[in-house]
Amino acid sequence: MSGARMRVISLETHDIRFPTSAELDGSDAMNPDPDYSAAYVVLRTDEDEKGHGFAFTIGRGNDVQTAAIRALEGHIVDRDCSDLGAVYQDLIGDSQLRWLGPEKGVMHMAISAVMNALWDLRARREGKPLWLLLAEMSPEEIVSLVDFRYITDALTPAEALEILRAAEPGRAGRIAALREHGYPAYTTSPGWLGYDDDKLRRLCKEALDEGFSQIKLKVGADLDDDIRRMRIAREVCGDGYPIAIDANQRWDVSDAIRWVQALAEFGPWWVEEPTSPDDVLGHAAIARAVAPVPVATGEHVQNRIVFKQLLQSEAISYLQLDAARVGGVNENIAILLLAAKFGVPVCPHAGGVGLCELVQHLAMFDFVSVSGSKEGRVIEYIDHLHEHFVDPVVIRDGGYVAPEAAGFSSAMRPASLAAFTYPWGQYWTSAVAQSSPAAEARRTSAVTHPPVLKGRSA
Amino acid sequence: MSGARMRVISLETHDIRFPTSAELDGSDAMNPDPDYSAAYVVLRTDEDEKGHGFAFTIGRGNDVQTAAIRALEGHIVDRDCSDLGAVYQDLIGDSQLRWLGPEKGVMHMAISAVMNALWDLRARREGKPLWLLLAEMSPEEIVSLVDFRYITDALTPAEALEILRAAEPGRAGRIAALREHGYPAYTTSPGWLGYDDDKLRRLCKEALDEGFSQIKLKVGADLDDDIRRMRIAREVCGDGYPIAIDANQRWDVSDAIRWVQALAEFGPWWVEEPTSPDDVLGHAAIARAVAPVPVATGEHVQNRIVFKQLLQSEAISYLQLDAARVGGVNENIAILLLAAKFGVPVCPHAGGVGLCELVQHLAMFDFVSVSGSKEGRVIEYIDHLHEHFVDPVVIRDGGYVAPEAAGFSSAMRPASLAAFTYPWGQYWTSAVAQSSPAAEARRTSAVTHPPVLKGRSA
Repeated sequence: MSGARMRVISLETHDIRFPTSAELDGSDAMNPDPDYSAAYVVLRTDEDEKGHGFAFTIGRGNDVQTAAIRALEGHIVDRDCSDLGAVYQDLIGDSQLRWLGPEKGVMHMAISAVMNALWDLRARREGKPLWLLLAEMSPEEIVSLVDFRYITDALTPAEALEILRAAEPGRAGRIAALREHGYPAYTTSPGWLGYDDDKLRRLCKEALDEGFSQIKLKVGADLDDDIRRMRIAREVCGDGYPIAIDANQRWDVSDAIRWVQALAEFGPWWVEEPTSPDDVLGHAAIARAVAPVPVATGEHVQNRIVFKQLLQSEAISYLQLDAARVGGVNENIAILLLAAKFGVPVCPHAGGVGLCELVQHLAMFDFVSVSGSKEGRVIEYIDHLHEHFVDPVVIRDGGYVAPEAAGFSSAMRPASLAAFTYPWGQYWTSAVAQSSPAAEARRTSAVTHPPVLKGRSA
Repeated sequence: MSGARMRVISLETHDIRFPTSAELDGSDAMNPDPDYSAAYVVLRTDEDEKGHGFAFTIGRGNDVQTAAIRALEGHIVDRDCSDLGAVYQDLIGDSQLRWLGPEKGVMHMAISAVMNALWDLRARREGKPLWLLLAEMSPEEIVSLVDFRYITDALTPAEALEILRAAEPGRAGRIAALREHGYPAYTTSPGWLGYDDDKLRRLCKEALDEGFSQIKLKVGADLDDDIRRMRIAREVCGDGYPIAIDANQRWDVSDAIRWVQALAEFGPWWVEEPTSPDDVLGHAAIARAVAPVPVATGEHVQNRIVFKQLLQSEAISYLQLDAARVGGVNENIAILLLAAKFGVPVCPHAGGVGLCELVQHLAMFDFVSVSGSKEGRVIEYIDHLHEHFVDPVVIRDGGYVAPEAAGFSSAMRPASLAAFTYPWGQYWTSAVAQSSPAAEARRTSAVTHPPVLKGRSA
């Protein structure tokens, strides 16, 4: 998409870390002690506009992620970035940087952060929330944003255009519907592994009372515990209420099959991340073996090429895109189109730092312009760290309220940046941090390492 | 593998870049202008021993790769690293760093560099070349080095043990055979896209005269050119001589099929990297369509999990492991065992900076202790940058001479480190570098960016 000149004159990075591991709100089978963090980037134009983006990490390595974003400076600064299709091609096409992936891991998340910041900039300039900016684009403009390399065996540009054109009728009505009713959400709050049975029961009840369409329980540490917890959740929520389970990549293929079969009597809505996100054939084997329990994955899927294969092999029944792992808005449009082509509903991953804020825009765009449907679709919601954002998500009646502020909801509050910049922000140099269990770890480990604490997880 | 205490007291990194793009020796379809680089690491013990490792990159981003290696310091320094299975588990199991992959891209290559440095250290301490150190281990010790997570549906520890035990008879004889005859090599030197027909003809002739078992041509930029070049190579080398082709990920699935079918009449020995290294199903579809032309891939395959699937789906007939992309020696042992289980020969990727030096050890270990065979197996050889290594590879009669120096052949010469450290080494601050086409690029691009030149490729 091209438009009036948009000249970026600076790229500023911040290593932001929140001491979430100290709060002990939960844990999952793979991530016992995350410090939710963001490698945060601010782009400025010669007209003093700003765009904000970030890669989400869980602590150590956030400095490496920040360095990766800085390595893209030469592609962005002192350049007209108005054509967001061309900038994206330039970033993913740098043959030297591509060697570090290609299109995966730290470098790809850096591209995501920068592209999302450019989209925030563009949406602010247009005075629209990102979802609406995208929803009002023509099918041709949307297709021009996508890199079809390596996916044409599943989706051609012509097929993408057809999908978008088929969804054109009714777009205005769906925009109005979003503004009136929002987009359904599910909550992971009841399901952390660390909670006792009473707390699980109470939080399940609260989720129902708050109107959420679905809940999710973390599983995978101990099968007997999982059976007991699933039974409790089913008792509280009632038959038919969607209760998903999430193993966070804990299992090998045969473990996954055995475990899910043992939980099948409680009717899990889906089983999420049963094994490695790289294992397409493994997911497909699990899906065949545990049917009719559907398989979901995506938060750690590295790019459109792996999503393509998960769809081609019928490995997933729900696609959980992440707003900040693949190459930003452009690649997520490709992924939404692939999902539509295969008729698989997209239920985005959220939580972390600001992922709810970002991903709502993509799900709403999907509803207006791609799938045209909310059927079988929900956005994950986790209630933490929203207070650090200038335009935090608003949840009403168990759903996301359509954002109206211009931009991608990606800007963090200046006070939060000042406090949680690692390691020299006010929080990290404060008496609280110094006297926490983190202090000893900070003194004894390498300077690049944040404190090692125990607690809440993604 | 555990042994006497091996306490690492420092981890030192170097950002080393060679101006290979200035030399114009060749190019491939995806990498027009690489500056071959190494994020180089030196570990020291409290007994003043040293171990050397590196990640190979092609220029920009080598600083990010170096930062990633530094992020592992807290896992290695001030710790007894004698149990190389345990250290490896600790590195890949850091849940916070794992979020940046998992097990792929920049962080995984950093783990590779550090693990390979530890193996160099260990082999030096034992006074043996790495291949021999590994070749003399018991099957049980070897199995204890492997992380079987996510691969047990294809290879269990018991099966791995069985493979290694089956290869135990004859190990001494194969060690002697390696020392006498070396290991066969093939050369990519004739095949760079930038060469004219006369140079191609001459270099094919030279490769034959030097006794190489195979050559390889880069393809994928222009089909008519490729047909002409393949015809010339076939004329010079004669019917039946192995001529592989390498597309460096240039194609989508349908392009690959069309292109390879058009070249099939010249009997390509294999087609290498026909498409994205992430596309298991794509490789399988290509393999089915272009049979009997075999498919090969691996230099960009991120980990054992993707290799597992390439084998399960019969997508590859040759497995091209890389010594410095997956998680170092430990993960490469897993990959060698997977290849043996599926009966697929391993023909390692080499070239770059020091990849020939590293990979010879893995191929020789494979011959002695895993596959027990050289049948259908060759190591890639490219003749550049060996002069920067203390123990460079030796090629005789078209094959690798088995190294006898203690270690992993991974140590670079101090003079090379001093000259090519970026951006403050003698070369980069010299009049040559300043007056090169690089100079303007250096002045106008971000400080993290090396010069952008044109030329030779991986």
